[in-house]
Amino acid sequence: MGDSQMAGFGFEGAVRRKLLLGCVAAAAVMVAPGVALAADDLADVKAALARNHAVAVKRLQDWIALPSIAAENRAGKEGADRMAQLARDAGFQHVEVVPTAGMPGVFATLDAGAPKTLGVYFMYDVKQFDPKEWSSPPLEARLIDKPGLGKIVMGRGAVNQKGPEATFLAALHAMKDAGRKLPVNLVLVAEGEEEIGSTHFGEIVNRADILAALKKTEGILLPSASQDTTGGVSVELGAKGIAELELVSSGAKWGRGPRQDLHSSYKAAVDSPVWRLVEALQTLVTPDGNKPAVDGWYEHVKPLTMRQKELIAQSIQVRSEKAEMEEMGISHWIDDLPFGKAMERLAAEPTINIEGLVAGYTGPGGKTILPGRAVAKLDLRLVPNMTAADARPALRAHLAARGFGDVEVNMSGGYDPTETAEDAPVVRAQQAVLTRANVSYSLYPRSAGSWPGYVFTGEPLRVGAGQFGLGYGSGAHAPDEFYIIEASNPKVAGLDGATKSYVEFLYSLA
Amino acid sequence: MGDSQMAGFGFEGAVRRKLLLGCVAAAAVMVAPGVALAADDLADVKAALARNHAVAVKRLQDWIALPSIAAENRAGKEGADRMAQLARDAGFQHVEVVPTAGMPGVFATLDAGAPKTLGVYFMYDVKQFDPKEWSSPPLEARLIDKPGLGKIVMGRGAVNQKGPEATFLAALHAMKDAGRKLPVNLVLVAEGEEEIGSTHFGEIVNRADILAALKKTEGILLPSASQDTTGGVSVELGAKGIAELELVSSGAKWGRGPRQDLHSSYKAAVDSPVWRLVEALQTLVTPDGNKPAVDGWYEHVKPLTMRQKELIAQSIQVRSEKAEMEEMGISHWIDDLPFGKAMERLAAEPTINIEGLVAGYTGPGGKTILPGRAVAKLDLRLVPNMTAADARPALRAHLAARGFGDVEVNMSGGYDPTETAEDAPVVRAQQAVLTRANVSYSLYPRSAGSWPGYVFTGEPLRVGAGQFGLGYGSGAHAPDEFYIIEASNPKVAGLDGATKSYVEFLYSLA
Repeated sequence: MGDSQMAGFGFEGAVRRKLLLGCVAAAAVMVAPGVALAADDLADVKAALARNHAVAVKRLQDWIALPSIAAENRAGKEGADRMAQLARDAGFQHVEVVPTAGMPGVFATLDAGAPKTLGVYFMYDVKQFDPKEWSSPPLEARLIDKPGLGKIVMGRGAVNQKGPEATFLAALHAMKDAGRKLPVNLVLVAEGEEEIGSTHFGEIVNRADILAALKKTEGILLPSASQDTTGGVSVELGAKGIAELELVSSGAKWGRGPRQDLHSSYKAAVDSPVWRLVEALQTLVTPDGNKPAVDGWYEHVKPLTMRQKELIAQSIQVRSEKAEMEEMGISHWIDDLPFGKAMERLAAEPTINIEGLVAGYTGPGGKTILPGRAVAKLDLRLVPNMTAADARPALRAHLAARGFGDVEVNMSGGYDPTETAEDAPVVRAQQAVLTRANVSYSLYPRSAGSWPGYVFTGEPLRVGAGQFGLGYGSGAHAPDEFYIIEASNPKVAGLDGATKSYVEFLYSLA
Repeated sequence: MGDSQMAGFGFEGAVRRKLLLGCVAAAAVMVAPGVALAADDLADVKAALARNHAVAVKRLQDWIALPSIAAENRAGKEGADRMAQLARDAGFQHVEVVPTAGMPGVFATLDAGAPKTLGVYFMYDVKQFDPKEWSSPPLEARLIDKPGLGKIVMGRGAVNQKGPEATFLAALHAMKDAGRKLPVNLVLVAEGEEEIGSTHFGEIVNRADILAALKKTEGILLPSASQDTTGGVSVELGAKGIAELELVSSGAKWGRGPRQDLHSSYKAAVDSPVWRLVEALQTLVTPDGNKPAVDGWYEHVKPLTMRQKELIAQSIQVRSEKAEMEEMGISHWIDDLPFGKAMERLAAEPTINIEGLVAGYTGPGGKTILPGRAVAKLDLRLVPNMTAADARPALRAHLAARGFGDVEVNMSGGYDPTETAEDAPVVRAQQAVLTRANVSYSLYPRSAGSWPGYVFTGEPLRVGAGQFGLGYGSGAHAPDEFYIIEASNPKVAGLDGATKSYVEFLYSLA
């Protein structure tokens, strides 16, 4: 993935919630599966939470004050060291910083002598920020009363993902303080490059001993503030993969047209790399721009199952098509599909999207040049069983077969689709917690957004992975990012409620 | 032309010289036509030139110190007043500032009691500049020794066009000082908006009395430093027209796709205005991007005459194809045409060029959005008898016929092609002066670049128009613009030599 500027799953995750906002806002409470819950009411844990509240908040604030930003090569060592210390403090017995070719990661294990083991994924890096755009200093993590929401902590990383992660750690502290042994063992893997596409995360996960430890887990938990403002939760069973790349047409590579920009009057005698890009592009999709037309693109596409369609059909029964379209700023789905079919298409179809076009003069007005270079920035959404690694060769072969072999296909990043079975332990544990907490939730088969769950759900690990945690926050990648500490809406969990949700998750899984 | 940012002919003119550089560098001396020259050797005028040299230089420097910039709405009144004063000082008896909806123009007449009248076009505006980019303050017009060229004046407007214009004025002063009556009457029209596409010049030219005055002229002279560094001159008989416009595809107009940028994961359910632009664009040209495919586009295209082809064939005999291709940064002409055919195509063919593409995210790396808007900036070169006014309706009709009626076609500016007959008085006078001065020159049928000569050569005036004047300068629209005052190459005219060329032009025309 190299120097990718691609947003990591933090961004995609933030959008994911928005993508599904409508579906959870009014979702019916699903029937709870038969997963065992903690046999007690956790009174001692709740007491510990209350006692430790201030410490837990302070822990998060201190963490926010140390921003690690891979894109700026900022505070990698300090970030990994802090991550390791946080793990030690929470009770992990084996904790080590794992060097990579990029920012270091952390591997830690907590042996509770339990029969089952849970994998946990953390990111300690955050997105870049510009303090000028913030209403409160982004590293001060101030506690602020936000009308309609409650007491929040505002700062970079508050919701993406230090807030939920610190909440998970608070759960471990509370258990310890209550004198309880964890009901499951833990394996923690943390990285510092999530925001640049998890470039070197594979080096961590695939180290033999780490891989072996992860293989013993029941699945992977990614702490996440999963509630929406009404308290609803969408339990996702998968997400599309993504490949992000640039198509570059240039006189230099082509050997025709100008090597640099030329005065446009020459067009009558000189070929245009821009027109060449336009011609190459239009071969990639159907004339309506809605279906990839790249040779072999659908070879590995797995259609939705009846169950997946059923889950989508269930979800739309309690969603407002009108509200979702308004929020998206659209008036029609593709081909004027009805809502249900559009949502099936959203989950099922791979895409070739142009996220940016850049050629020649891009400022106001015009400038009479024949550009020597033209670039299309593409993002391709991949569905099971497509792989990100296949995308570039397929595009290259398709273009070469049509005489566009000189058009460069430069991949900046990507990852495979991810799927977790409905009966995976991490999914069943989530449902149990939600049911017990009387939280409205829906199962959703596949997010159209992307996150690199394939690292866990794909080869060689093949374990389930799920983002979970009560609580709410917003502003990932944006100014004024925040995470709720005390919610004014009783249906939304604050820090202590979210912490308790992790305790219950551990018991459910056990 | 409204808020056009289109470069006026100053830019195009500067490029025009470069376009034809090769052809004049080694051009054969053509046979002089039988046009009468001044019967004497102009010894008294030469003496006056020498006497007035310092004053003429100072006049130019003072003019450069007052920059009028239409794009910045800067010094319109002051510029027009100065232009009027310069005309008065040079002997024009009737001088008036002509208001327009934009920067004012100037109309002036000089009645010498001669049988013939010459029209003269001036622009008093200059291109924007950033002093930080200059090696000498752009408004100080310092005299500098430039190795290999001689003594130059450096400043904004030095060559485009205050230098050549001040040189023409110096010719009038020298005649006066030598006690000579002008051999022709003069009608001067000057504008202050050339650099923004001569937006309101029509208001000046088409005022009834001004039009009547211009109609009496033998043709229009545009003072210009026409020599290249070897001293050669290309006498041009025409230039292509141009239409500059933007094609805009947007969800807002289309009613499909997002009205603003949307997260790219939605592509599977939402149409893309960017793909729509790509599809619309590729209908405009042949698949190689080299020939307009717009319905009816060739209806008014007049093929090159045998004489025009002959002139091109003559020119390439003394040009270096290799040197020209190197300077352009190309390795092949369209369809691998031989040089002569490529130059015919360059002169003969209308073009649809993409000068810029802008959609979505255009910075480094990527950003996962489905853009709500995409823009293609086009410049269309027009050949006789196409008109700029026809371009937009033709494009709109073509797009509408293919279902792209929602794609906006916003024209920012343009003008018709221009042609002046080989036997027009302004052309024959140029040839006579060049022959007498022993300057290598070639006739060229049509520049692929554009300048708005149609204002004069088209309806209702229909008089010949030619850019002429010995001398050399460079850097139009760029930092360190300059004009030679004393040339180190004896084949290149300095200020006095260029001034003399205008005196001889007046006698030749008379």
